[in-house]
Amino acid sequence: MALVVQKFGGTSVADPDRIRAVADHVARTRKRGNRVVVVISAMGKETDELLRLAGDVATTRPGREMDMLITAGERKAMALLAMALHDLGVEADSFTGSQAGFITDTTHTNAKIVEVRPDRIRTAVDADRVPVVGGAQGVAGETHDVTFLGRGGSDTTAVALAHALGADICELYTDVSGVFTSDPRIVANARKMERVSFDELLEMTANGCPKPAMRSVEYARTHGVDLHVRSAFTWETGTLVTKEDHDMEQAIVSAVTHDTDETKVTITGVPDRPGIAARLFRALAEHDINVDLIVQNVSVAGVTDISFTVPRSDTAAAERTCAELVEEMGATSVLTDPDIARVSVIGAGMKSHPGVAAKVFETLSGHGINIEMISTSAIRVSCVVREDQVEDAVQALHDAFRLEHGPVLAD
Amino acid sequence: MALVVQKFGGTSVADPDRIRAVADHVARTRKRGNRVVVVISAMGKETDELLRLAGDVATTRPGREMDMLITAGERKAMALLAMALHDLGVEADSFTGSQAGFITDTTHTNAKIVEVRPDRIRTAVDADRVPVVGGAQGVAGETHDVTFLGRGGSDTTAVALAHALGADICELYTDVSGVFTSDPRIVANARKMERVSFDELLEMTANGCPKPAMRSVEYARTHGVDLHVRSAFTWETGTLVTKEDHDMEQAIVSAVTHDTDETKVTITGVPDRPGIAARLFRALAEHDINVDLIVQNVSVAGVTDISFTVPRSDTAAAERTCAELVEEMGATSVLTDPDIARVSVIGAGMKSHPGVAAKVFETLSGHGINIEMISTSAIRVSCVVREDQVEDAVQALHDAFRLEHGPVLAD
Repeated sequence: MALVVQKFGGTSVADPDRIRAVADHVARTRKRGNRVVVVISAMGKETDELLRLAGDVATTRPGREMDMLITAGERKAMALLAMALHDLGVEADSFTGSQAGFITDTTHTNAKIVEVRPDRIRTAVDADRVPVVGGAQGVAGETHDVTFLGRGGSDTTAVALAHALGADICELYTDVSGVFTSDPRIVANARKMERVSFDELLEMTANGCPKPAMRSVEYARTHGVDLHVRSAFTWETGTLVTKEDHDMEQAIVSAVTHDTDETKVTITGVPDRPGIAARLFRALAEHDINVDLIVQNVSVAGVTDISFTVPRSDTAAAERTCAELVEEMGATSVLTDPDIARVSVIGAGMKSHPGVAAKVFETLSGHGINIEMISTSAIRVSCVVREDQVEDAVQALHDAFRLEHGPVLAD
Repeated sequence: MALVVQKFGGTSVADPDRIRAVADHVARTRKRGNRVVVVISAMGKETDELLRLAGDVATTRPGREMDMLITAGERKAMALLAMALHDLGVEADSFTGSQAGFITDTTHTNAKIVEVRPDRIRTAVDADRVPVVGGAQGVAGETHDVTFLGRGGSDTTAVALAHALGADICELYTDVSGVFTSDPRIVANARKMERVSFDELLEMTANGCPKPAMRSVEYARTHGVDLHVRSAFTWETGTLVTKEDHDMEQAIVSAVTHDTDETKVTITGVPDRPGIAARLFRALAEHDINVDLIVQNVSVAGVTDISFTVPRSDTAAAERTCAELVEEMGATSVLTDPDIARVSVIGAGMKSHPGVAAKVFETLSGHGINIEMISTSAIRVSCVVREDQVEDAVQALHDAFRLEHGPVLAD
């Protein structure tokens, strides 16, 4: 008898009908001989509505109180799902993050899990009951205050719980039917992957693949929790996420992702002195600005340009931070360009196939797409291009690596 | 420096504007030199909406899950009020019933307080912060499950907290400006009472006076917690509820209340044998039916009628229970009559003035109002009349005892 952790996101439980459908799904999973632990997000757009309500009431939003407010969302959903399960004759109990044993740090609105002590969950499972756990919730070990793990935190709750319980599999139910070789909205012949490694999925989620939440994939990789990313609206098999199997043939290229949510920031006329870049990126880090791709041009006459990308929401903060430094550094100016996008080619087998980058550049150039910045890792090649060309770039690369036919395998 | 517990009901915090108004009220109370602990209900009709949502999702409603669901309501309100207080520069923290130390039994949806251990609340007060406590919430000592004290439970939370903290006063803010000599919607010259004893208020709430919740008045009486019933929409003084002061002059009659939410049930042709009534009321009690007024007619030829009143919501259950017994008892039939109402005259000084009941009967008869059932206690006379005559009855009694001029005092 397998122990399965099933996580259902907000769209999966958006209304009473959907909650009953999820209950039916859980009941059927049990009928097939599994024990089930459910992790659930707030219904539909409820979290957004709670945030709007907070905005209507106050301008001050202490993190402690925001977490108390936001966690009301999962609380509703989990109680309702437990009731719907009872309706189907399945004994179920809802649990808050605190009751489920999620001990976190005190970083409100974005708490980190310190420890999971799922005693009550284990007891419920042993009693043949279905625990329904509120996602993204915890309690601060130090202050006993309620904490929220942040957006996408329900995926992390599910993975951490699966690890703590020694579950056989952690199923992440979303509104897509698995992990695709590319965004199916853009690439018509994008293919659902049967299997993908943690490393590859991590690069994918870090580079624009929206689901599952990157943090949960990191947690799963660190603790070796097998994931099954699948649809809450069908019974079809999704994508299995596992450790890279070295006996297994590796795809040279597995997927093409893209990300349109970044801005390029350029500081021009930077004197090419040691320590200048360090000073800049330290200042950005201190302002919690997540810098991604960094490119420094070749120095001409002792002066260079430094470009990097930041999440679009951090644009103003990045611009402010850079402007403060421009004078100090003796640089010329700060330019921001939001009309960029990143396209990435990802594959675990790339490590042993150095020709991938060249093929990426040739393909883009062959389609008249100019590359503005480049960044690579052992299993990824990313290029920054004009935003209005990114869909063409994705399709061209998907075609070039023939991803619609299944993975191109390394020797 | 006084310690004040202030409880705000649902209408007091129905929308963002009202929440900010309550925050302002709390801030001003502090400015006047008081320390404040707030107890808050769910916003407006939120509890009803959560109940409707549960109905849309499932027909099975396990109490444990209903409590988890319902308590999401106060959770939202208390976090929002804490934010609004921060906006005014008042440091505030919200607390669930569990965090506030409300240990209850396991009777879900209607839990009883077993113990209050308000350590975190005391710590917050000592740190000059304002704790905002979710009303009607607790945690079952035995199971560690979340519990709900039931409708009106926020009043009880406030009173119990005031007792546990040794507060100087417990202020219950409602949508009326105090306790009146009668319902001001019916009796135009009803007068707000300056002061009323626990015993009188208890008889009043037991007999149709809607606020505060009867259970909280019982708790306040048992533990001697002084109450101040007042309006959340004005700053005017409301009604003080205290222990009866035997040195104080007592009003013979303090108030006239009425209750239209009952049904009269009559069993006809009951053989007049010992044990028959006991058997009947035991059966009703076993079905959790709250029987109130009971009248047994004089036996004629060994046969009698038994009438009693039950809350209208229990009518069907009472009818069913009686029908089962009719055959067994050899009675004739069960009749129900929902078109009745009860009018009650209440006054602590009545004990030493036996003429009150006679004056009540005379007054009603003088207005052509027929009395169908009578029940009395040491400080109350209640009559069941036709529902369509009850408003006339209330006005007539209010006039007869001249309650608009202030209490008629006992010698």
